[in-house]
Amino acid sequence: MGPKATPDQTDHVVARLEEAGVDARVSRGREATVIGAIGDRELLATLPVEGYPGVEQVVPIVKPYRLVARELAADPTVIEVDGRRVGDSYFGLIAGPCSVETREQTLETARVVAAAGGTMLRGGAFKPRTSPYTFQGLGIEALELLKEAKAETGLPIVTELMDPRHVDEVVEAADVIQIGARNSQNFLLLSEVGRAEKPVLLKRGLSTSVEELLMAAEYVAKEGNDRIILCERGMKTFETSTRFTLDLGAVAVLKKETHLPVIVDPSHAAGRRDLVLPLARAAAAVGADGIIVETHPQPEQALSDAAQQIPTSEFAAFAAEVGAVVALMGKEIG
Amino acid sequence: MGPKATPDQTDHVVARLEEAGVDARVSRGREATVIGAIGDRELLATLPVEGYPGVEQVVPIVKPYRLVARELAADPTVIEVDGRRVGDSYFGLIAGPCSVETREQTLETARVVAAAGGTMLRGGAFKPRTSPYTFQGLGIEALELLKEAKAETGLPIVTELMDPRHVDEVVEAADVIQIGARNSQNFLLLSEVGRAEKPVLLKRGLSTSVEELLMAAEYVAKEGNDRIILCERGMKTFETSTRFTLDLGAVAVLKKETHLPVIVDPSHAAGRRDLVLPLARAAAAVGADGIIVETHPQPEQALSDAAQQIPTSEFAAFAAEVGAVVALMGKEIG
Amino acid sequence: MGPKATPDQTDHVVARLEEAGVDARVSRGREATVIGAIGDRELLATLPVEGYPGVEQVVPIVKPYRLVARELAADPTVIEVDGRRVGDSYFGLIAGPCSVETREQTLETARVVAAAGGTMLRGGAFKPRTSPYTFQGLGIEALELLKEAKAETGLPIVTELMDPRHVDEVVEAADVIQIGARNSQNFLLLSEVGRAEKPVLLKRGLSTSVEELLMAAEYVAKEGNDRIILCERGMKTFETSTRFTLDLGAVAVLKKETHLPVIVDPSHAAGRRDLVLPLARAAAAVGADGIIVETHPQPEQALSDAAQQIPTSEFAAFAAEVGAVVALMGKEIG
Amino acid sequence: MGPKATPDQTDHVVARLEEAGVDARVSRGREATVIGAIGDRELLATLPVEGYPGVEQVVPIVKPYRLVARELAADPTVIEVDGRRVGDSYFGLIAGPCSVETREQTLETARVVAAAGGTMLRGGAFKPRTSPYTFQGLGIEALELLKEAKAETGLPIVTELMDPRHVDEVVEAADVIQIGARNSQNFLLLSEVGRAEKPVLLKRGLSTSVEELLMAAEYVAKEGNDRIILCERGMKTFETSTRFTLDLGAVAVLKKETHLPVIVDPSHAAGRRDLVLPLARAAAAVGADGIIVETHPQPEQALSDAAQQIPTSEFAAFAAEVGAVVALMGKEIG
Repeated sequence: MGPKATPDQTDHVVARLEEAGVDARVSRGREATVIGAIGDRELLATLPVEGYPGVEQVVPIVKPYRLVARELAADPTVIEVDGRRVGDSYFGLIAGPCSVETREQTLETARVVAAAGGTMLRGGAFKPRTSPYTFQGLGIEALELLKEAKAETGLPIVTELMDPRHVDEVVEAADVIQIGARNSQNFLLLSEVGRAEKPVLLKRGLSTSVEELLMAAEYVAKEGNDRIILCERGMKTFETSTRFTLDLGAVAVLKKETHLPVIVDPSHAAGRRDLVLPLARAAAAVGADGIIVETHPQPEQALSDAAQQIPTSEFAAFAAEVGAVVALMGKEIG
Repeated sequence: MGPKATPDQTDHVVARLEEAGVDARVSRGREATVIGAIGDRELLATLPVEGYPGVEQVVPIVKPYRLVARELAADPTVIEVDGRRVGDSYFGLIAGPCSVETREQTLETARVVAAAGGTMLRGGAFKPRTSPYTFQGLGIEALELLKEAKAETGLPIVTELMDPRHVDEVVEAADVIQIGARNSQNFLLLSEVGRAEKPVLLKRGLSTSVEELLMAAEYVAKEGNDRIILCERGMKTFETSTRFTLDLGAVAVLKKETHLPVIVDPSHAAGRRDLVLPLARAAAAVGADGIIVETHPQPEQALSDAAQQIPTSEFAAFAAEVGAVVALMGKEIG
Repeated sequence: MGPKATPDQTDHVVARLEEAGVDARVSRGREATVIGAIGDRELLATLPVEGYPGVEQVVPIVKPYRLVARELAADPTVIEVDGRRVGDSYFGLIAGPCSVETREQTLETARVVAAAGGTMLRGGAFKPRTSPYTFQGLGIEALELLKEAKAETGLPIVTELMDPRHVDEVVEAADVIQIGARNSQNFLLLSEVGRAEKPVLLKRGLSTSVEELLMAAEYVAKEGNDRIILCERGMKTFETSTRFTLDLGAVAVLKKETHLPVIVDPSHAAGRRDLVLPLARAAAAVGADGIIVETHPQPEQALSDAAQQIPTSEFAAFAAEVGAVVALMGKEIG
Repeated sequence: MGPKATPDQTDHVVARLEEAGVDARVSRGREATVIGAIGDRELLATLPVEGYPGVEQVVPIVKPYRLVARELAADPTVIEVDGRRVGDSYFGLIAGPCSVETREQTLETARVVAAAGGTMLRGGAFKPRTSPYTFQGLGIEALELLKEAKAETGLPIVTELMDPRHVDEVVEAADVIQIGARNSQNFLLLSEVGRAEKPVLLKRGLSTSVEELLMAAEYVAKEGNDRIILCERGMKTFETSTRFTLDLGAVAVLKKETHLPVIVDPSHAAGRRDLVLPLARAAAAVGADGIIVETHPQPEQALSDAAQQIPTSEFAAFAAEVGAVVALMGKEIG
């Protein structure tokens, strides 16, 4: 209660809490009165306590997520797809082009990723682009190319779902459904993939906090799908020397807060090719469960994110460098 | 070009630009070489120049938006709906509950807003909520209640569209379709409403820059719908004493950059009732074309945003206070 | 206590708190144990509770500042200097050049500010500049020019102190000692001016929170000097269309949290001349107690901040526009 | 030039540039006119071009720092102190208590750091604290204890200088003078240590950009002292699950932009002990030239930063874990 709250206001809050079946305990200090509310988390979340007269501050003590919390699972979750694994002692090396552009580009990239021991193939069919005047992805056609790449290399496919009206097509083609950063709090899309039978790769939004990311995962888990991979990909901050600010501290926190695997996207955070390797190594060293990186046979011809894609000719060397850190951390590429 | 770029790399960039039909001019300084590329804006946007070897920095000189740019229109755009107006000399006073909860709450609020001279009624049918365990809105049922409120009071309805599968229902019920902050860069939803016959109220995302907001509006306009109201509602920053940081500087910039009306949502930025009036007055004084605020007959019973809704009993006084600043700025409530 | 805290760890915390003379009350919920610590605020601040085993979170309920808190004073503080006033119903219109450059520039500006009814004259003698290769201010020589301007116009002088070794000279020449944004948490400088006999104008740092700003003011007040004017001047955020993000929400919060006057610097926040008037009006409308703006006889010749200074030829019109909002808010220029 | 700039305004800008001895070249596009100004970097920095009428945007192409730029030095700089080295292939492991509190605490910590192969001892004598009511450091007395610790262990001393009036004492006692985050843009302190004969450890401020940090280092170097170690220690952002957001991308950028060594402070960024090791490993893996961490014999008794100090009993294990990543990166602890 604020410093000017009256005893009546305190009583009013207590009465409302008790009406709702919550146990309320009052501590009166010289400078403030504190009401401790003990009750069911979900019930408490629905009470508009911060709107009661005299209330200055509401401090949630119990975390608002449950299904994704570390305490819920005895062991860290491992996401297994076609024998490939991400989580616990398995480090996912997910790579591929930013966008699927042509059949040749897609197959060539897939072969390189497979040869270097990659875990999965990424590739965008539907591209969220800041400008309406730039390439928006090949759409459904790209899904077919990705399926062909999988048929040839055996690599499971990670691709983004943007539109709830495409759920069926994407779920059918993808092995892992990606929810992009700009949809990180698109709650209806989260609920949709919560009902899908495929694992979900959930990217952190550009201004999504760690707690909000866990709540977004909770949306998915609440619908029954707990095969979720979280992905840090950089925050919007004042710093412009990288495209986004990669928050590896958030990865370290997530590893303590949740049983879900946590991977890192160094490509989008860096925005430039020469920073991808150092950030990928740092991701492995901080304890991430994998990385998702962009690689392209001819980056300078790429229709999106040209500056940050690694040439496929350099991908094997890249994978080896990252792999050395993975091994040092006692993990193997999954 | 970077300091280590070779003449060959410079020639390569020039050749690629010329191939694409762009005029390229090279200035060689002692410490850097600058290539000026002059050509069609949309064409330039598609060239992956930043991926060419030796390129250090790409600096767009021409703005990436066009249809929404101030220069395009002789006069500021006025959005007119059922005789109510927002833009230029008309200040939109848009108010209503955060969520539509009951028939009585909705009608009572609508009457108060109408009596105080409000321009439109806002009310959420579909609510994006951080937690899956909280109230998610009444959905389609709420749209019926809003239509009833309009029938009684004549106030046009502003309500949010979240799901592209609800376009028909929302477009039918709403007079102005709101795109919420978390969908500010949901480009497919933007394209959808770009094809609708109703005006769009587009909120700035929590970490959307002014330029990105204008690009989002460009998505809508590109599909043919240029009846767009932009809305500043607060940014995610390090400051926690307000729920979000209201960026009135962005409003001042937008008024110079675009012909579209720009309004402000002080309620969501503040997150607390006692700051709504000062921020609403500041919005009017900075030159905004309107505000959108939350009001509720019994805020402490509200199912969402209880802390920030103004009691309807205080709404007329609030409207009068804001109206005084509006009048001083030479405008009238639309 | 965290979810894995043992009863022993809880007992240990309680024992340590009681040893220190703090009253500790334990509430055990199903999902967490909360220890309420009630005692002297300053004592509590010195206990390293967050370092005790098992402690997950320390939530301060009582605010950490005291002397500057709203509750301490019956009425808002008014800073009076030579008959000019800032605070409560007096709006301070403080204006002058970014830097003192020449005698003529300084006197001409002072005359214009005085003629337009300005409250005080600002002018930088020592300039903190990002680059060591740019103009650093005239130093001591500038102080003499400011004194001359005061002698002629009667306007009290606001100028910045950067170096604790210049305290005597600046205190002697200045009527109000400015602490700049980059020194907002230079605690030793704050203590120095806390021992001075002159009022202090304390700018908020680029990433200083409202609470940290109040703690900085507490440093000054603790040494005995409670004549402090707080100043919001823009935050460092991801948005680049303005030089800094002016946080008028913080002004509204500060007006509720402290009895000290709160003013706004729209010039540094905007970084461009054409936004200064809208932001100044918004500052007056949000309830600020004044503004501090930059004006120069020939801005394009200015040695610093050329882009944002208002030409002195336009200053009287500017002052009149702002004055109209001040009057509407029931205040007068002090 | 902005879209409405007149030919006269363009001519005016060109004339002013040429007057100043700068070569100006005009490119007229359909949508904008661009003036390329080629001349001495320091001269350009002093021209207030952004203030000339019609100018819309000034885009610096050449970087504003010179002495600290990567191009200036053939090889990365190695800072050597008493046979200990930081930079290039030497990784600095700098450790010690947050604050020097007692003789016993200081000596015990120094012995542990030396035994684990640490490079230098850190310890705060003067502490910048947000609250005036908390421990402010032992001051001069602490410097004596640090000298004693050095005499016994041979570890060079890193300690912070806050007050230009303490330059002599701190320079005499310290082997490396630390400039703290809150003084990162205290330009006069930077100039002071630029004239000192000791290396400088310069921390990045909480909202200092990479470019601003390099400009701050340029202040030091301009006075003649180019023995500078840069230190990333976390930014102020919206994320609160760590105390600050550690920006390892900035470290990767700095390694490309400057010849100076770049180290990381994981302790202050994390704010909690259990995140220090993962972040230290990530720092080594991203290519940092060292870390500076806090360790204390009994963290829960610490007078500052209790939550983040590593117990000295765990320091050897910590050093070994970090050392493994250092070795993998082809470096040795210096």
